[in-house]
Amino acid sequence: MRIGVLTGGGDCPGLNAVIRAVVRKGESVYGHSFVGFRDGWRGPLTGDTVPLDTAAVRGILPRGGTILGSSRTNPYAAVDGPSLIRENLAAAEIDALVAIGGEDTLGVAAQLHAEGLPVVGVPKTIDNDLFATDYTFGFDTAVNIATEAIDRLHTTAESHHRVLIVEVMGRHAGWIALHSGMAGGANVILIPERPFDFDKVCAFVEARFATHYAPIIVAAEGATPIAGTLVTREGELDAFGHVRLQGIAQVLETEIRGRTGRDARATVLGHLQRGGTPTAFDRWLATRFGLHAVDAVHEGDFGVMVALHGTRIDRVPLAEATRELKTVPEELYNEAETFFG
Amino acid sequence: MRIGVLTGGGDCPGLNAVIRAVVRKGESVYGHSFVGFRDGWRGPLTGDTVPLDTAAVRGILPRGGTILGSSRTNPYAAVDGPSLIRENLAAAEIDALVAIGGEDTLGVAAQLHAEGLPVVGVPKTIDNDLFATDYTFGFDTAVNIATEAIDRLHTTAESHHRVLIVEVMGRHAGWIALHSGMAGGANVILIPERPFDFDKVCAFVEARFATHYAPIIVAAEGATPIAGTLVTREGELDAFGHVRLQGIAQVLETEIRGRTGRDARATVLGHLQRGGTPTAFDRWLATRFGLHAVDAVHEGDFGVMVALHGTRIDRVPLAEATRELKTVPEELYNEAETFFG
Amino acid sequence: MRIGVLTGGGDCPGLNAVIRAVVRKGESVYGHSFVGFRDGWRGPLTGDTVPLDTAAVRGILPRGGTILGSSRTNPYAAVDGPSLIRENLAAAEIDALVAIGGEDTLGVAAQLHAEGLPVVGVPKTIDNDLFATDYTFGFDTAVNIATEAIDRLHTTAESHHRVLIVEVMGRHAGWIALHSGMAGGANVILIPERPFDFDKVCAFVEARFATHYAPIIVAAEGATPIAGTLVTREGELDAFGHVRLQGIAQVLETEIRGRTGRDARATVLGHLQRGGTPTAFDRWLATRFGLHAVDAVHEGDFGVMVALHGTRIDRVPLAEATRELKTVPEELYNEAETFFG
Amino acid sequence: MRIGVLTGGGDCPGLNAVIRAVVRKGESVYGHSFVGFRDGWRGPLTGDTVPLDTAAVRGILPRGGTILGSSRTNPYAAVDGPSLIRENLAAAEIDALVAIGGEDTLGVAAQLHAEGLPVVGVPKTIDNDLFATDYTFGFDTAVNIATEAIDRLHTTAESHHRVLIVEVMGRHAGWIALHSGMAGGANVILIPERPFDFDKVCAFVEARFATHYAPIIVAAEGATPIAGTLVTREGELDAFGHVRLQGIAQVLETEIRGRTGRDARATVLGHLQRGGTPTAFDRWLATRFGLHAVDAVHEGDFGVMVALHGTRIDRVPLAEATRELKTVPEELYNEAETFFG
Repeated sequence: MRIGVLTGGGDCPGLNAVIRAVVRKGESVYGHSFVGFRDGWRGPLTGDTVPLDTAAVRGILPRGGTILGSSRTNPYAAVDGPSLIRENLAAAEIDALVAIGGEDTLGVAAQLHAEGLPVVGVPKTIDNDLFATDYTFGFDTAVNIATEAIDRLHTTAESHHRVLIVEVMGRHAGWIALHSGMAGGANVILIPERPFDFDKVCAFVEARFATHYAPIIVAAEGATPIAGTLVTREGELDAFGHVRLQGIAQVLETEIRGRTGRDARATVLGHLQRGGTPTAFDRWLATRFGLHAVDAVHEGDFGVMVALHGTRIDRVPLAEATRELKTVPEELYNEAETFFG
Repeated sequence: MRIGVLTGGGDCPGLNAVIRAVVRKGESVYGHSFVGFRDGWRGPLTGDTVPLDTAAVRGILPRGGTILGSSRTNPYAAVDGPSLIRENLAAAEIDALVAIGGEDTLGVAAQLHAEGLPVVGVPKTIDNDLFATDYTFGFDTAVNIATEAIDRLHTTAESHHRVLIVEVMGRHAGWIALHSGMAGGANVILIPERPFDFDKVCAFVEARFATHYAPIIVAAEGATPIAGTLVTREGELDAFGHVRLQGIAQVLETEIRGRTGRDARATVLGHLQRGGTPTAFDRWLATRFGLHAVDAVHEGDFGVMVALHGTRIDRVPLAEATRELKTVPEELYNEAETFFG
Repeated sequence: MRIGVLTGGGDCPGLNAVIRAVVRKGESVYGHSFVGFRDGWRGPLTGDTVPLDTAAVRGILPRGGTILGSSRTNPYAAVDGPSLIRENLAAAEIDALVAIGGEDTLGVAAQLHAEGLPVVGVPKTIDNDLFATDYTFGFDTAVNIATEAIDRLHTTAESHHRVLIVEVMGRHAGWIALHSGMAGGANVILIPERPFDFDKVCAFVEARFATHYAPIIVAAEGATPIAGTLVTREGELDAFGHVRLQGIAQVLETEIRGRTGRDARATVLGHLQRGGTPTAFDRWLATRFGLHAVDAVHEGDFGVMVALHGTRIDRVPLAEATRELKTVPEELYNEAETFFG
Repeated sequence: MRIGVLTGGGDCPGLNAVIRAVVRKGESVYGHSFVGFRDGWRGPLTGDTVPLDTAAVRGILPRGGTILGSSRTNPYAAVDGPSLIRENLAAAEIDALVAIGGEDTLGVAAQLHAEGLPVVGVPKTIDNDLFATDYTFGFDTAVNIATEAIDRLHTTAESHHRVLIVEVMGRHAGWIALHSGMAGGANVILIPERPFDFDKVCAFVEARFATHYAPIIVAAEGATPIAGTLVTREGELDAFGHVRLQGIAQVLETEIRGRTGRDARATVLGHLQRGGTPTAFDRWLATRFGLHAVDAVHEGDFGVMVALHGTRIDRVPLAEATRELKTVPEELYNEAETFFG
């Protein structure tokens, strides 16, 4: 078989480990050959390919990013997108596709499979918000980076009198905030699933200062206060039309200063959380995802996605990947609350 | 309730995180009080206690080691051991015990519970060789340390002409070698479950050199060659009665030099793998184990051990902990073999 | 002799290493005894002391923060401050003081010494902006943290199309930005010593995108554009009287978006740079500073400060510490510019 | 000008940073062009070249190893070596050479320069044992790796009863052992410059156990006991003619077990210390070395080597590099002894 591989969506440590495992096992165990498509679905849409064999994947296991490039191109938004893809795959003599990506990339894969394309999916989201799998690769790396940041702030918290805020990724689900906040021993964790009460946050802040330590607040970027509770004026636009209080870190800084009179300092991790070498867990998971994805292709089991359940790699229908967002359940957040204040 | 806590067996990153979670939830949610017993079962055996409350556990979450100390004391090996424990617990007005430890510590816990002691167990083994749970804390930390070591050797492997050997922990089970070897991209992984063939190892070594990179071999300390295949003379004793070829790293160094004429250099990680701060995953797992252990105590559900299944913390009978050793199954080792050579 | 020790000013990895070295050598080699003063000059001002001996400094070498606490208290701002200090030192039977701190703390030390107090100084500033010494401890740690952040962003820069901005410490001197920017391979480095031209910054941004990589900009928090060149409106106040465009990262984000139409994302490291365990270099420097400071005290050589010149620890007059700010010289910045764009 | 670049000797983090700086400044500031010679002096000896320009050095700053490869080839050991080099350089139209390497590589450079070759040297030794410069790049990275290892052992030292031994690099000079031992808080540091007394080592071991912590011994691989003091029998050969007690770690393990009856466990870092990404300091130093080396070439100032003095990069005669080994002076070792036991 001749198998195409593509990576779509945002950056995520472990993408290269998947690609390497697919190619290494596909070549050495099954004798298949591979073609890389550049920049997600843009590759098959425009016929932009890159050679992909054992030599091409040498040394990429520990490297972040993706040697295939990525994009958010949606072929269904292009004129005749699906037809163009079929033509380009035929021209390149591709028998099957491995699509590595998140909700959007796999959503396209599911639709193309429904229309007859032989495709196997590998789930990828740094936010860990996919229902069909226990974990996605990249998440453990992001959580470790955020935890290390909180660790560093703790030493400072012992000798300063400022509120320390860490803004982490998570627009719709608070998994990174929850895990890193618990692992780092944060005093408050704010997540999108649970709009927060500024009175309570400030109460935790004061309770923490009473123990002679400065409080550390971990906030997912999508965390929001309960509507109408901000003291600061919302919604003002700057010269470029951006809302003034852009990030939650800044909202917290400003509001806490205003309410408690205490100085607050934010650390905004930003893209840091997506970069660098994957942790051992993420490399292990990504490698195993790759091995099992190429097994599925070899067996002709298309329209599926690999998924982690316990320590087992299973296959689930591609449609599962996009069915529902996996948000933080109440009982897990309650566990974390044990340590607030 | 007044609850005793002890930690037994070898060092393992995450022990302090368990203790902290038990105490924090027990005090703030249930209103229980706590007593620490020093040095595993030696504590209840001799009545050696230490105060244990929220103040005592402040700041210990990220710290390796255990604030309660540890030992391998077996009360069943002492005269009247179990009776002494019962007396000391009564004297200290202890209503229940949380025992954190591996096979030996939990084996004692199971036996004492069978004799009427109200005890809940928390599994701990850096080797991850417990059947009842998907993972134990400490393991992820050890795997990351070993993986980082392999990563560093890779840059050197590009410009040297030596065989690089990394000896990692694992006397009876090769989990650390398997995970770190796969995550680190090792060229050969040797584990106790699968006695190895030196001819094959040397063939992989030569195959790797043929690609102009030096080979990296990861060996669990319990890995052994197939009986009778060593060229070096075995079993000689030194002045202190120790066997001459003590470690597998040394056996590999010597034998590979002898067979291939190539220089070989070993890195022996040793206790490094047990030390330092736990990874985010291990803190998360240890913290959740602690929270669920104190829940079990509060509910009077004794004779159980907390365990991870997928993302869920369950309770299983204490006896499960020691029933059988979880070794690396053949199909997982086969996955790793895809990348050998 | 009975020697007091205090730490003043902002947090800085290595403070504990100094304290430990002073006490260990003072006790074991010279037979002196020690008293800790809490929270910088507030300690001697109010007579707030803490026991300080070998047991008290055990295990603190790798720990960030300071076991003595810190503050910015200036005894010359208090009524009868210097007299109160003299009284409290007499009451505690203190023969000499070791003051560890930055410009402010050592400025007070210099003045008190001029008025007869037997004091030896140890320089501390994470910003490395002290003329009298080649380096100060804490700086190497901060530079490594910032460099690691830039490293992580590089993998992301290969697959994204955003301008990546890292804001590091440095209000008056750009040492951390310069060193981490050079070590991390930044495409532009902005420092307070050199007001920057937004046209040039945007030209570098576009030049970098032309190579298919996203540009990384490292900016010291004190970096400022050449006056009058901002497109965004400056100086607006928010509800709490803070200026709207608070940080340089935000100014860059907003202005680059406005000028180039390209998305920009900021990482703001904040207090992260002051926290956590010191690097080996900082522990080595801090330890040697401590050893040489207690030598000076033992020899009765007061009014001096220890300083690093090459690999040698020298003594310089305390007044040197505060004479002049060490800013980045033009020729060093020019070296860095070699790599811009 | 057309400038050749080569890297010789053992692996050392920072080599790539030098190459990049030489090329980037040489191309963009001076308009020179570059040619890489492969595997140290073997390159010019055999005419083995590789293209070297800005594109070739992209992304190599943080990477260990060397893109040019390395070897210990000595052209003076080859028939007509120096003539062959002159011919090959003429054939490749090379106007000058930048040679990056240690004692051997720079010794050849000095000799070739004496015979008329226009060459500039860049010093490289992970052992930091070169007199002409305060520090060499790679050293800081090795020290940090060793220090981190010691840090990890400390947590274990709190709960175990074993002597912990760390073997670090340094055959002839103990710099890595000294710096990492002091930074890591080792209880004994053993270096080649000072043959050690096993009675004293065992006394420190027992003194440390008396404080309820396990002792940590850091030993340079070249450390040796005072002649004739070993209890173990020396000099026995194994089947391949290697001496039985090969490494100092093993000598210490065996002898301490024999003398004190206490268990001892060794960590042997090996090539780990040469691998991985350079620290910020090493990248900064290597980059500046590269910038100043190409300045010297541009100015036609040959036969010199760049060197660090304080924070300044100077030029010194190439012969300086090999004049004398920089060993640990007595007064520095005495500073470290303050913390023994």
